[in-house]
Amino acid sequence: MRKTGEMMTLDELLTKETLTELRIMYSHHFDARNLEGLVDLFTDDAVCEFGPDFGGDWVGKAQIRDNFAGYLESTDRVPFGVLHAVTNPWIRLIDDETANGRWYLHDLFTEEGQESPLGLYGIYDDLYKKVDGRWLIHRTRIDFLWPKRVYTGFRDL
Amino acid sequence: MRKTGEMMTLDELLTKETLTELRIMYSHHFDARNLEGLVDLFTDDAVCEFGPDFGGDWVGKAQIRDNFAGYLESTDRVPFGVLHAVTNPWIRLIDDETANGRWYLHDLFTEEGQESPLGLYGIYDDLYKKVDGRWLIHRTRIDFLWPKRVYTGFRDL
Amino acid sequence: MRKTGEMMTLDELLTKETLTELRIMYSHHFDARNLEGLVDLFTDDAVCEFGPDFGGDWVGKAQIRDNFAGYLESTDRVPFGVLHAVTNPWIRLIDDETANGRWYLHDLFTEEGQESPLGLYGIYDDLYKKVDGRWLIHRTRIDFLWPKRVYTGFRDL
Repeated sequence: MRKTGEMMTLDELLTKETLTELRIMYSHHFDARNLEGLVDLFTDDAVCEFGPDFGGDWVGKAQIRDNFAGYLESTDRVPFGVLHAVTNPWIRLIDDETANGRWYLHDLFTEEGQESPLGLYGIYDDLYKKVDGRWLIHRTRIDFLWPKRVYTGFRDL
Repeated sequence: MRKTGEMMTLDELLTKETLTELRIMYSHHFDARNLEGLVDLFTDDAVCEFGPDFGGDWVGKAQIRDNFAGYLESTDRVPFGVLHAVTNPWIRLIDDETANGRWYLHDLFTEEGQESPLGLYGIYDDLYKKVDGRWLIHRTRIDFLWPKRVYTGFRDL
Repeated sequence: MRKTGEMMTLDELLTKETLTELRIMYSHHFDARNLEGLVDLFTDDAVCEFGPDFGGDWVGKAQIRDNFAGYLESTDRVPFGVLHAVTNPWIRLIDDETANGRWYLHDLFTEEGQESPLGLYGIYDDLYKKVDGRWLIHRTRIDFLWPKRVYTGFRDL
């Protein structure tokens, strides 16, 4: 396995940047309240492992759509009233069709009138799968850090 | 058009990273109070569409220089008393010499003594043009979100 | 020297992304309290120039390990009780085995119970060296901005 600092190959770089774009588009679609754009980023058998505070595992694309739709309806926010800002991508290619990504999440409440925009900090831990030539989110989890800690730690890879 | 998650090509990746660097250098030059470095990133016919709170459209490189110079003089800040931190780049190539970028902007007031460094949150929406082999900023706009919302939404592309 | 906006080459891009990963892994290892992972990112003769508030220069890998170990022990924090979020990478290749990186640092205190997670803002200014085919951190410095300003400015390159 390549050590950090050893040169990555072109193939690795292209995959990593394609995965980076995938994770970033999750934020743009979610924050724009674009449900179909958001749900399109998941595999049919994806699992959102957001924990008991968010209803336990969301299993499969239909349930993921329903639960994101419910969340968007319940919040009744303007577009970009929340920003899911993401930094510090750490992406590891496991095999030709599996990859792991860990990202720092800065959840910002950006509605006008919000006293403090600092919503929460956490770490996304994603599994990506390549299905019919297209990388998608297969599993995603958040290590919640602040203000409430719900920490699982690293996935076994 | 390539879907999110489909592999990008090397040409696309090289262009995207060149554009990423362009947007990031805007921040480094602006925050260093390096007026010439900043203005050099714009096309001669560029337009800064920062809205009525910033004097309406700034049209052409001469006016852009004047207005940034005025802004820098009026603030009288130390270098890096403001950070224009940017995350979540979403870059779309429109044709060989036109591209769009949307970025989350975290405007931080980082002068010593500042009680809260949270300045504003918004979204840059840029058009880039390739002129004589060099990518430059052709138009830039901000969807202001917090603390004051001045929201336009997506450009027609 | 290439101007901002002129197309980067594949070789430059591969080096830049390898260096980006190096700087990001510093954060992941530091924040996970993974001392060996962190120290492994430095050259044997590296220098951490964190200034008088952090004990002056840390010279060589042995001292760097000792000082990071002492820091981790003294803080007694949970994993990811601090996030070293980094944005706005500006990476310049100086020669085949030397490069400079400047990054915006958002130091976040993310322990549960922390009233405000905003720790400090600054700018990393790194020198990277390629040793036996592997890029490592050779020197690193922080321009501290907020809440306490200790500002040096740009390195001579």
